[in-house]
Amino acid sequence: MTAYDDQNILAKILRGEIPSFKVYEDDETLCIMDIMPRSDGHCLVIPKSPCRNILDATDAQLAAVMTTVKKVANAAKVAFNSDGITLQQFSEAAGGQEIFHLHFHIHPRHDGVSLRGPGVMGDMATIKAHGAAIAAAII
Amino acid sequence: MTAYDDQNILAKILRGEIPSFKVYEDDETLCIMDIMPRSDGHCLVIPKSPCRNILDATDAQLAAVMTTVKKVANAAKVAFNSDGITLQQFSEAAGGQEIFHLHFHIHPRHDGVSLRGPGVMGDMATIKAHGAAIAAAII
Repeated sequence: MTAYDDQNILAKILRGEIPSFKVYEDDETLCIMDIMPRSDGHCLVIPKSPCRNILDATDAQLAAVMTTVKKVANAAKVAFNSDGITLQQFSEAAGGQEIFHLHFHIHPRHDGVSLRGPGVMGDMATIKAHGAAIAAAII
Repeated sequence: MTAYDDQNILAKILRGEIPSFKVYEDDETLCIMDIMPRSDGHCLVIPKSPCRNILDATDAQLAAVMTTVKKVANAAKVAFNSDGITLQQFSEAAGGQEIFHLHFHIHPRHDGVSLRGPGVMGDMATIKAHGAAIAAAII
């Protein structure tokens, strides 16, 4: 198992060293917008405590993250009037992981609309507005 | 929210009405092989109790499922000497869901090897052997 490296982007966001568009926060978890959105409303749920991915996460970290995933997924469905949700989680580079702090991708989906390709920076004002819309729909 | 329909394939598997290749089982969860594998070792983790997807799952169902996901993902990584794991969960048809009982897809991944396309039935003897290999690696 590769050790956790606290210089990853999500660790820096958690320490407030770089900015993010926050959607939701509680004692154990944080939800922020992905700035390379593959869907309108694409956001990430992470534990506040360090772990690399699903392979080394504790049961408590996973339980807390999933409680937030469910909360945000339902809010995103309302905010975007979406027909469904796609959830993705990548462990290690071969699994698709690029940032080595555990994160779940939440994508609001609409019938007949594919996910966009990865790696394209979005419009920051739009992403901010989308994050605010999800936050406003959280119960 | 659409109601749970207990005539879905996973509900029938849970009732023993149709067969499956079992990888792991505990009081709350079941892991079986996907018979249309998009990766060698592609398996599904489900709660034994009914829920449609992430949008209506309880926190307890999600926590139990993720504990099993972690256990099986680590075993699959060992069994297939894989470089990583891709986890997918689809909610509603627009999100990619085809069977309406909550399930998480676990894919062992290798560097440079893409997931295969969906909807192609695998070789049953191979799938059975892959399931046994994962089961043998569960700690």
